[in-house]
Amino acid sequence: MNLQDIIRQTFAETLETHQAAADALPPAIELAANNLLGALLGGHKVLICGNGGSAADAQHFASEMVNRFEHDRPGLPAIALTTDTSTLTSIANDDAFEQIFARQVRVLGQGGDVLVAISTSGRSPNILEAIHAARERDLQVIALTGRDGGPLAELLTERDVEIRVPSERTARIQEVHLVVIHSLCDLIDRQLLGIRP
Amino acid sequence: MNLQDIIRQTFAETLETHQAAADALPPAIELAANNLLGALLGGHKVLICGNGGSAADAQHFASEMVNRFEHDRPGLPAIALTTDTSTLTSIANDDAFEQIFARQVRVLGQGGDVLVAISTSGRSPNILEAIHAARERDLQVIALTGRDGGPLAELLTERDVEIRVPSERTARIQEVHLVVIHSLCDLIDRQLLGIRP
Ligand SMILES: O=P(O)(O)OC[C@@H](O)[C@H]1O[C@H](O)[C@@H](O)[C@@H](O)[C@@H]1O
Ligand SMILES: O=P(O)(O)OC[C@@H](O)[C@H]1O[C@H](O)[C@@H](O)[C@@H](O)[C@@H]1O
Repeated sequence: MNLQDIIRQTFAETLETHQAAADALPPAIELAANNLLGALLGGHKVLICGNGGSAADAQHFASEMVNRFEHDRPGLPAIALTTDTSTLTSIANDDAFEQIFARQVRVLGQGGDVLVAISTSGRSPNILEAIHAARERDLQVIALTGRDGGPLAELLTERDVEIRVPSERTARIQEVHLVVIHSLCDLIDRQLLGIRP
Repeated sequence: MNLQDIIRQTFAETLETHQAAADALPPAIELAANNLLGALLGGHKVLICGNGGSAADAQHFASEMVNRFEHDRPGLPAIALTTDTSTLTSIANDDAFEQIFARQVRVLGQGGDVLVAISTSGRSPNILEAIHAARERDLQVIALTGRDGGPLAELLTERDVEIRVPSERTARIQEVHLVVIHSLCDLIDRQLLGIRP
């Protein structure tokens, strides 16, 4: 198999995962969009966290909320908890790396806000801690996961939404997470601006 | 059309774009992977820039080079030029926002390094300036673009590689850019580690 065949194989796997996601995820994405919209219209905000590629997703999502997605509209309050390296390193250095998001959730989060927690494995300890903190502060959780949802899935209640990508492979799960984020932005824009399909 | 139909439509459009990319992009991705590998094996490094969602992609790519993608291997030198807000705001405030990446390329870039420039439109002035700076400092360019490649495509020479996603829609182009980034990481890992397909 030459390099171009390997590239074609990656795309084939990606296509398969996106097709499986298209079949499985629309109900959960709809619910998540409605919860986000309800919170935003109620004057609440969105906090977003993730590690590595999912930290990049957190920032991608926040920038499309605060600034714009496909249409000009009033900015929407969203904060990626992954960007302030002074805050992140001080929490990790003085307390523990597991607390980098949880502490921010406790300090910045207010009842009615939404925590978007992104983890392909559902196993990252700092994401689990963030969900515990969200629970304490009365935030709803929208979790973007993959694989079997991991211990994260066990922490969720009826009020929360899990959008679990049907794949075992981190890269493929991240790729679909980005489509989910774009779909959430699209649904929020359409409803805020009254855009017809 | 209800919300779930709109979500399914987004996935359908995504699938179509990924299929078109799978047909069109393997030769360019192969060439880009070979150029990156050649530069890294020659002791050079990779600088990466983009705005908004593409800034997130720049950081995603850098983290998978510096830390890891799917396998443990020696870290690979890559720097996202999008993260140091002290540097970014000072360049934009003292000089101009168009120079935020170009100045870093001139200062950090050395002959033989690679600049990965990510722009869905090929029109962002700070990305065009970064490419001019790369040319001055004798860096190769790998451009991830979309639409018609914009003025960016005109700036490239034979030494450079453009990976242009066949789509007109920013969100869809970004989604494929992430697959391209994962494919580049995969090809680099396979060749460095001698992994068989
Ligand atoms: O299991 P997650 O919460 O998604 O966390 C994974 C991250 O820590 C990163 O792990 C590796 O560095 C890579 O697979 C990255 O893409 C990933 O985001
Ligand atoms: O044309 P580009 O270089 O890709 O730049 C686009 C970015 O500035 C951002 O524009 C809007 O804010 C959104 O479409 C973002 O997703 C995009 O990254």
